[in-house]
Amino acid sequence: MISKELASFIYRTNFSSLPPEVIEYAKLCILDWLGSALAGSDKLPGKILSQLVTKLGGTPQATVLTDGSKNSCLHAALVNGAISHTVELDDVHKGSIFHPAAPIIPAALAAAEMKGAGGKELLTAVVIGYDVGIRIGEAVTPSHYYYWHTTATCGTFGAAAAVGKIVGLTEEQLVHALGNAGTQAAGLWEFIEDGAMTKHLHPGKAAMNGLLAALLAERNFTGAARIIEGRRGFCRATASEYDLEKITDRLGKHYKITETSFKIHASCRHTHQTVDIVLDLMRKYGLSFEEIAKVRVRAYQIALNITDNADPETPYAAKFSTQFCVALAARYGRVGLEEFSEDNLRDPQLREFLSRVEFVTDPDLDSAYPAKWPGRVEIILKDGRKFTGYTDFPKGDPENPVSREELIEKFRQLAGAFLTPSRLEKVITDVLQLEYISDVRKITSGLGSND
Amino acid sequence: MISKELASFIYRTNFSSLPPEVIEYAKLCILDWLGSALAGSDKLPGKILSQLVTKLGGTPQATVLTDGSKNSCLHAALVNGAISHTVELDDVHKGSIFHPAAPIIPAALAAAEMKGAGGKELLTAVVIGYDVGIRIGEAVTPSHYYYWHTTATCGTFGAAAAVGKIVGLTEEQLVHALGNAGTQAAGLWEFIEDGAMTKHLHPGKAAMNGLLAALLAERNFTGAARIIEGRRGFCRATASEYDLEKITDRLGKHYKITETSFKIHASCRHTHQTVDIVLDLMRKYGLSFEEIAKVRVRAYQIALNITDNADPETPYAAKFSTQFCVALAARYGRVGLEEFSEDNLRDPQLREFLSRVEFVTDPDLDSAYPAKWPGRVEIILKDGRKFTGYTDFPKGDPENPVSREELIEKFRQLAGAFLTPSRLEKVITDVLQLEYISDVRKITSGLGSND
Repeated sequence: MISKELASFIYRTNFSSLPPEVIEYAKLCILDWLGSALAGSDKLPGKILSQLVTKLGGTPQATVLTDGSKNSCLHAALVNGAISHTVELDDVHKGSIFHPAAPIIPAALAAAEMKGAGGKELLTAVVIGYDVGIRIGEAVTPSHYYYWHTTATCGTFGAAAAVGKIVGLTEEQLVHALGNAGTQAAGLWEFIEDGAMTKHLHPGKAAMNGLLAALLAERNFTGAARIIEGRRGFCRATASEYDLEKITDRLGKHYKITETSFKIHASCRHTHQTVDIVLDLMRKYGLSFEEIAKVRVRAYQIALNITDNADPETPYAAKFSTQFCVALAARYGRVGLEEFSEDNLRDPQLREFLSRVEFVTDPDLDSAYPAKWPGRVEIILKDGRKFTGYTDFPKGDPENPVSREELIEKFRQLAGAFLTPSRLEKVITDVLQLEYISDVRKITSGLGSND
Repeated sequence: MISKELASFIYRTNFSSLPPEVIEYAKLCILDWLGSALAGSDKLPGKILSQLVTKLGGTPQATVLTDGSKNSCLHAALVNGAISHTVELDDVHKGSIFHPAAPIIPAALAAAEMKGAGGKELLTAVVIGYDVGIRIGEAVTPSHYYYWHTTATCGTFGAAAAVGKIVGLTEEQLVHALGNAGTQAAGLWEFIEDGAMTKHLHPGKAAMNGLLAALLAERNFTGAARIIEGRRGFCRATASEYDLEKITDRLGKHYKITETSFKIHASCRHTHQTVDIVLDLMRKYGLSFEEIAKVRVRAYQIALNITDNADPETPYAAKFSTQFCVALAARYGRVGLEEFSEDNLRDPQLREFLSRVEFVTDPDLDSAYPAKWPGRVEIILKDGRKFTGYTDFPKGDPENPVSREELIEKFRQLAGAFLTPSRLEKVITDVLQLEYISDVRKITSGLGSND
C-alpha cells in the first residue's frame, strides 16, 4: 500500500534525520519561493484572490502575502499559492515536470504560522512535501501531463504531506490525508489555449486543498487508503501509463528536493537552455544585437510545442516565445521580469528580430529529453562569422547549478520592490538560518504589507 | 463553443421564462434536499467539517446547517454540501448517474443568502444549476463514471452555473465561471473501496469549488473558454467516450430538473426497484417475514456490481447490500434511516435471511439499463407458493412518481428531529411557496440550530 509507505516515511522523517545538504537546499527553495511570491503579489490574479478572501474573512491564522493581512490558513494558502507561480520564476523539477514550491511551501507555511511552528519543522515539512509531490509526479509523467497540470494535481499530495507533518498526524491519519488530497486533485491544461488566469489558481487551490485534506485527517475524517494505486484511484484515472516504483524507490534515503531546478530567467523553463547559450555567446565574443543576421536554435520537440511563437501578442505569451526570449537576451543581456514589458513587446527592432530566429527540432536533442533538457544555438553575424554553443542543462539545474549568491541576488531583484532594504536583508538572513528561528511568524509578520 | 452556449442559456433564463411544472419540481427538489441535509447534519462527516470551518472562521454570509451558525458562503457550501449526501436520501438523475441537489443547492443557497436574494432567484438558479450539471454528466456518462464521481465533478459545473446566475454574471463572466469550475472538478470513486468519508467531502467540495469559480469570475478572473470540449479539457481528460450534443440538445426548451428522481428508501438507488417490488408483494398478498423461504432478485449488471453484498459489516455497507435491503423490507415493511441500525445489522434472524436472497443478473434487464432501472422479484414461501413482481423504474422516478404529499411526509420524517413542530410546518409552507419569499434568509435563519 503506497499511501502507507509514504505515511511511514512522513511520520518517521524528522529534522535530525535530514542530511545538511538537504537542509541547505530546502532553505534556498524557501528563499527562492518567497521571492517569486512577493514578485507576484501585486499582479492581477493575486489581487483578485486577495480581495475575495478579504471579503470571505477568516480567523487570523496566517499571512496573506498580497497585503500582509491575516486570514484563515486556507485562504492564506490559496492566495500565496497563486502568487507564487505568476511571474514564472518559481522552481521546477524536471523528471516530474512539476513546480513544487508553488503549491507546497504556501500550504506548509500557513500551517506553520497557524501552529506557531519553528524553522526546523517548516524545513522538514517542505522536504517531505517536495518528496511526496515529486515522486507521485514522476510516477505519472509524462502521460498524466498531457491533460493534467502536475503542479496542481501532484501539488495537492505534496501540500497535504507537508501540512500533515506540521500538524503532527499519526501514520493512519497521514493515509487519510493522502486519500483526501488525491480525491481533490484537479487542474487541466486547457487554460493554456487562452492564457487564462486559471494557471495561477491551480497552485493556490492545490495548496488549499492539500491543507484541507490534512486538517480533515487531523480530525479523523477518513479518505481512501489506496488513492494512488487503487483500481479507481489517481494513477489509473489520470495517466495512461505510470510506474509506481518511482514513488518508493530510495524513499527516505534520497531526497527529491535536491533535484529541483531554480529559474534565473523570467520565461518558460523550455526557453532557458537557449537563452543561456545566447547570453554566453554574446558575452564571450562581445557580440552586439545590431550585428546579428540570424540565430539558429535547435531543441527537443516539447520545447517547440510549448515555446515556438514568432508573434507573441501579450507580455505573458512572450514568456512562452523562444524567439522573443532570444531577442531579449541578444539585445539586453538579460531576460528578467522587467524585459517582458509592453514597450519591448511593441519595439519595432525587437519584433523585426523575431523573424531572424530559426527554431527547429533536433532529433538528437529530442532523444536526450527529458533526462536532459539540451539546447544548441548558432549565431550568424552579418559579416558571415558564426558562433555556436551547446548545453545539456539550463542553468539552475542541479547538473548546472547557480550559486547561493546568485539566488540571493535573484531574491533581491524580485522582492526589492516589496520590502524595505533592511527588511529585505533581514529576511534573507532569517531564511538562510531558518533552523534557528523558533517561530516562523517572526519571519512572516508584516510580510507583503509594503512596510 | 459549448461554454458560450451554456452561458447564453444561463444569462437569458429568468423566473418568468420557466414553465409552472418546472418551478413546482424545483420547489420539491429544494424541500427534498433540505430534509436530507438536516438528517445528515448530526452525522460524523458533517460534524468534523463543521468544527473545522468554525475554527477557520469567516464573514457571516450564510447558514451552516449543522449548528445554525453563520460563516462565509464558501464554508457554508462546503458543510451543507457534505451533509446533503450523508444519509443517501438526496435526489438522483438517472441518465447522468448524478446527485444534483447535494452539490448545487447548497452553493446556490449560500450565494442567495450572501446576496439577500429572493425565492424566485433561488428557484431560477437551482433549475439552471441542475440543467448544466446534468447535461455535462449525460455527455460523459457512462465512461466518466468508472473513475469519477459525477456528483463531485459535474456538480462543480452545476454549482458554478447556479451561483453565476445568483450573483448576476455577464455572459463572458459565465464562460470564465465554467472554465474555473471545470479545472477544479475532482472526485475519485476509490473511496468506495473502504467506505471512506470522502464520499461526503465530494459534494461539499463541488459546492465550494463551483461557488469559488463563480465568485472569481464575478471579479473577472479568467478561465479556459473551451474547458468542456477543448483538446486538453474536461471531457477528453476524464471520459474515454463522450457525446457533446447532449449538452446543448433542447437547451432552454426542456429543463432537466424534471427528470430528477426522488429517493424514498434510505439505501443505494440501485436497491430501490427491488425494495419497491418486495414491499408491494408483501402488502398486496399480506405476506410475513417468517413464512418466506427464498427471494429471487433479478437486476441489471451495475446493480450487482454495486449492491451485491450478502455480508455487510457496517450500517453504511448495509445500504449498499440488496440482500440486506430485501430483508428489511420483508421484515419491517419499510427501508428508512432507522432500519439501518447496529441492532438490525447484528440481528440473527435478519442475517440468516440474507442467505435466502438469490441475486443475479438478468440479460433482458441489463440491456434495458440505464434508460430503465428495471427489477424483477420472485418471493417463494415455505409452503411453496410463489409471488412475482416487476417494475421498469423505482418509485420516485419521473416515470413512477411519488406524490407531493409523500415528499412532504418524507421531509417530516427526515427533518422532524431537527426542528420544532411549528418550524417544521413553516419551512414546508415557505419552501412550497418559495416564489413569494422576498429574502431566502427568512427561511434559513436559525435553521440547523435545533431551535
